[in-house]
Amino acid sequence: MIPNTNYKNLKDSYLFYHIAQKTKAYLEQHPGAYLYRMGIGDVSLPLCDAVIQALHKAVDDQAVKASFHGYMPECGDPELRRTIAGYYKKRNADLSPEEVFISSGASDELGDILDLFGRDKKVMIMEPAYPAYVDANIIAGNTIIHIPSGEAEGFVPQPGERDRADVIYICSPNNPTGAVFSRERLKQWVDYANRTDAVLLFDAAYEAFIEDEDIPHSIFEIEGAKTCAIEICSLSKTAGFTGTRLGYTVIPRELERNGMRLNEMWIRNRTTKTNGVSYIIQKGGAAVFTEEGQKQVRERIQVYKKNAKVLMEALDRLGIWYCGGKNAPYIWMRCPGGMGSWEFFDYLLQEIQVVGTPGEGFGACGEGYFRFSTFGSPEDTKEAAERLVKLLG
Amino acid sequence: MIPNTNYKNLKDSYLFYHIAQKTKAYLEQHPGAYLYRMGIGDVSLPLCDAVIQALHKAVDDQAVKASFHGYMPECGDPELRRTIAGYYKKRNADLSPEEVFISSGASDELGDILDLFGRDKKVMIMEPAYPAYVDANIIAGNTIIHIPSGEAEGFVPQPGERDRADVIYICSPNNPTGAVFSRERLKQWVDYANRTDAVLLFDAAYEAFIEDEDIPHSIFEIEGAKTCAIEICSLSKTAGFTGTRLGYTVIPRELERNGMRLNEMWIRNRTTKTNGVSYIIQKGGAAVFTEEGQKQVRERIQVYKKNAKVLMEALDRLGIWYCGGKNAPYIWMRCPGGMGSWEFFDYLLQEIQVVGTPGEGFGACGEGYFRFSTFGSPEDTKEAAERLVKLLG
Repeated sequence: MIPNTNYKNLKDSYLFYHIAQKTKAYLEQHPGAYLYRMGIGDVSLPLCDAVIQALHKAVDDQAVKASFHGYMPECGDPELRRTIAGYYKKRNADLSPEEVFISSGASDELGDILDLFGRDKKVMIMEPAYPAYVDANIIAGNTIIHIPSGEAEGFVPQPGERDRADVIYICSPNNPTGAVFSRERLKQWVDYANRTDAVLLFDAAYEAFIEDEDIPHSIFEIEGAKTCAIEICSLSKTAGFTGTRLGYTVIPRELERNGMRLNEMWIRNRTTKTNGVSYIIQKGGAAVFTEEGQKQVRERIQVYKKNAKVLMEALDRLGIWYCGGKNAPYIWMRCPGGMGSWEFFDYLLQEIQVVGTPGEGFGACGEGYFRFSTFGSPEDTKEAAERLVKLLG
Repeated sequence: MIPNTNYKNLKDSYLFYHIAQKTKAYLEQHPGAYLYRMGIGDVSLPLCDAVIQALHKAVDDQAVKASFHGYMPECGDPELRRTIAGYYKKRNADLSPEEVFISSGASDELGDILDLFGRDKKVMIMEPAYPAYVDANIIAGNTIIHIPSGEAEGFVPQPGERDRADVIYICSPNNPTGAVFSRERLKQWVDYANRTDAVLLFDAAYEAFIEDEDIPHSIFEIEGAKTCAIEICSLSKTAGFTGTRLGYTVIPRELERNGMRLNEMWIRNRTTKTNGVSYIIQKGGAAVFTEEGQKQVRERIQVYKKNAKVLMEALDRLGIWYCGGKNAPYIWMRCPGGMGSWEFFDYLLQEIQVVGTPGEGFGACGEGYFRFSTFGSPEDTKEAAERLVKLLG
């Protein structure tokens, strides 16, 4: 048996693994040192009260025969699917509950969804990009069309004369750049996808961080998206579910290719390859969408937004170019003095014990840039910002 | 874009969906009727106290910053991996924690694991079989070598002169037949797999139901398995986790094909395509392996075993051939009077409101057989057994 040889085409190691190794080595050389971790996009605030209460109640349900839940529907708790369809309605995206699928999170779903597309697909990835987009497609044996972007276009590429792709990834608000796609730019991509028969995979994991009223939260706010787009979303950043795990995926009924309805295919996929998402976690997730839950998760997001402001002010003082931070929990800065991004990583780690993420890890055009996550504690973020100003000022 | 056309090769509809449709139609025609549901293998007893307490504690951890957990390690909580490696040690299977991967359950993992094998594989499935084995491989575009089995061999096939397969599924204790593979039979398959360079996918989801001391709980009790086998297990049936979702997968370090270590490939797969399993659920799962947890889950298993006994006694009285029930939560009976399995399904539903699973749904050689799950309530099982005796006696 010859295993999946595509694994041999994966690059040496995963970005965050590399960062973990480097910080580990630093701590071994400097025992007791304190690190200001703004590398991995993991949240630091605990779950909100509404979610905690719902989780406890769901655990209690599982303790008693009368309220015990066994297998959940594979595509998600119908009530939660309805709730999320209602959440979209507030954004002027008209979806039915049957178009919403509950998942264990966006990263799980971004990998699994490739099952819909079959073999030898051409996949367009706008870079800098979340490395798992690339790696999941390498494992699947797809061909990747890398679309580099840069400062000139604010890291928001537009469609143009390009190789025709089967699948196009868009992440807005973007990881890692924090850049957002405007309504007009998204419309261009929707039209492009419809014209070229491609499917857009829209990663909306950071939608809850959008401040500007005219920036779409969902691809389904754009006319024509229902015939070309799948949206993948998550409560990881919206509600601090990185370690709790819940997400959702929208596949419109109208999305057809070659006479096959992708919504129906996904139902078949889920009923074959999963037994649904944990009852307890789905109940916790449902609490996010209550009035109380929405209020509480927004309070937490404000904490992260204040972190972003502190960092943005520091970069403004230093006169360093950056984007993101306003509608996204990431800030993407140009490394000062023409430094390479891993060079800048080592410099910050050694000199001021601040850990960020080297832009190169998100694709070649990320070289010379650096990502800060704003999910740390306010105290650490403030201290890191002060150290940055002192070091680079 | 042409989607994955393999979906077109899937048969019309999924077995349990069909059953749900038929029972729904019955209830619409007979409002208020009570059904004795012994079809789907879903548990009916709530989670045990040790698990409930651990879940509550984990929820509390997520409520406070000092104990909050974000992203979990993609391959599982190291402590839980150690605990499960220890559980295997009691079965004389010597595994390291790094060979144990935590999953969201066996059905999820049985689908995902195909990612390791790449394209155009020949996959041997012993039938009757869990329908998802077949469907997941159809979606992946693999060729299926169906190995039918029957009463003569007690529904436990042996390797022989067969087409060479890349992957071989074994489920023991078996779903749907409840038959168990003896140590000698498993050794034959391990030797066969090593000789023919195949990988065994061993589904051990029902291991906790084994009574006979000489029946292996794990493929890794068999010499030579580490160079040919992957084991997929779950707490669904062991501890009533069907709606809570936790499982584990063992991929030995020694398992290599074509110079590629499958353990390393799976680490890369999980770090790319997941962000780990819910902290809360992993903590609940860990409680299953404590002394208290083991005692409590065994008490629950005894309840189901009593159900099995009640049904077996009824079939004995009726003089109907069956297997399973002793080391497995399923009983596999021959339909009386030469009835077809869907015919018998309709007969039981209409006459005595008992719902089972038609054997034909597990492969052509299941035609004429019928599966009872023993996961129902003792009251329902007793009543169903009495109705069976009355109807068929």
